[in-house]
Amino acid sequence: MILEIADIRIHPGQNDDFEAAIACGATRVIAQAQGFHGFKVNRSMETPERYVLQIFWATLEDHTVGFRQSPAFTEWRSIVGPFFAAPPYVEHFELVAQSD
Amino acid sequence: MILEIADIRIHPGQNDDFEAAIACGATRVIAQAQGFHGFKVNRSMETPERYVLQIFWATLEDHTVGFRQSPAFTEWRSIVGPFFAAPPYVEHFELVAQSD
Repeated sequence: MILEIADIRIHPGQNDDFEAAIACGATRVIAQAQGFHGFKVNRSMETPERYVLQIFWATLEDHTVGFRQSPAFTEWRSIVGPFFAAPPYVEHFELVAQSD
Repeated sequence: MILEIADIRIHPGQNDDFEAAIACGATRVIAQAQGFHGFKVNRSMETPERYVLQIFWATLEDHTVGFRQSPAFTEWRSIVGPFFAAPPYVEHFELVAQSD
């Protein structure tokens, strides 16, 4: 299992609409993808236009190949892309420690 | 419950030592703080010197006042601080959506 973390900045004043859109897009599009294992969306308290989207994937390739190179990626971007103030910054992570 | 996300960059070549240190510091110091509800440490696959530390706190003030203004914060920084290549970038987040 790997973790995708996407750092997102949206246009100011669109929080409610963006939150509805990303919840819809993640549930209806991303959650249907091969290897999807869950998502979370968090909004920054200090920077309200900043969101962190976390998605768990079975493998790196489930995201970078299976999802990103599928028509579903275009559908996802059509739902959330209009809110983006800049391209999201995305990296993938491995868990190295956690509390019991 | 709120989520602290700390974006950390360490000096190259110290991954093993840093991972042991942060696991130790989080478990022995942070996990003893009032309002602590769990932590995760993830390492970037694209940028091996980048780590994302996530800590769940009952309230914002449990972190910003209760922990940061206690001697425990100094102890924590003495354990992990020597590995930092730059000051960690820290913000706090509220959950706005998640998968079932």
